[in-house]
Amino acid sequence: MILVRQEIGDVLRDFRLQKGRTLRQVASKASVALGYLSEVERGQKEASSEILASVADALDTPISVIMREVGDRLAVLEGIEPIIPDTIPDEFVAAMDADLVTR
Amino acid sequence: MILVRQEIGDVLRDFRLQKGRTLRQVASKASVALGYLSEVERGQKEASSEILASVADALDTPISVIMREVGDRLAVLEGIEPIIPDTIPDEFVAAMDADLVTR
Repeated sequence: MILVRQEIGDVLRDFRLQKGRTLRQVASKASVALGYLSEVERGQKEASSEILASVADALDTPISVIMREVGDRLAVLEGIEPIIPDTIPDEFVAAMDADLVTR
Repeated sequence: MILVRQEIGDVLRDFRLQKGRTLRQVASKASVALGYLSEVERGQKEASSEILASVADALDTPISVIMREVGDRLAVLEGIEPIIPDTIPDEFVAAMDADLVTR
């Protein structure tokens, strides 16, 4: 089952790291417990809408930007959007190498 | 404060009505209590990720479609996307009428 909280957690962590902030800094600015924010980032706890708003604020990121990113990642998980790999898959390279050898 | 659960509730209700289903039908198919689903739709209760997945399933709608719509509506609320009105605002019509009167 695809869980929204897992994607919300991943997106919150990615935005935080992108901005070079620590869990401690964001938790403190958002007035949430560090352990709680950490659990939210790991997809282990559902964040209430109030907490989400306050973490988004602490990350200087509109909540809409966070939720759109969540929607986009869910679409990839659901196979609605094709996954564009960052690197060439190993199988593809192997197939290319094999082709060169036999030619 | 902009609350994600309010938008989630609105989107779930809108998708349900679009598909011509009753609260009772969706609640029963998703195995959630009717009163609970009603509170979620009115933005009064946070839906867990499991409940969201099961309501999305009962609505035959991918969860990514629901969350993207939530993100889009949040963007409008945050003033990131311009609101395109369906109808001409009353104030605009009134101003036009006033203009015609004074001409």
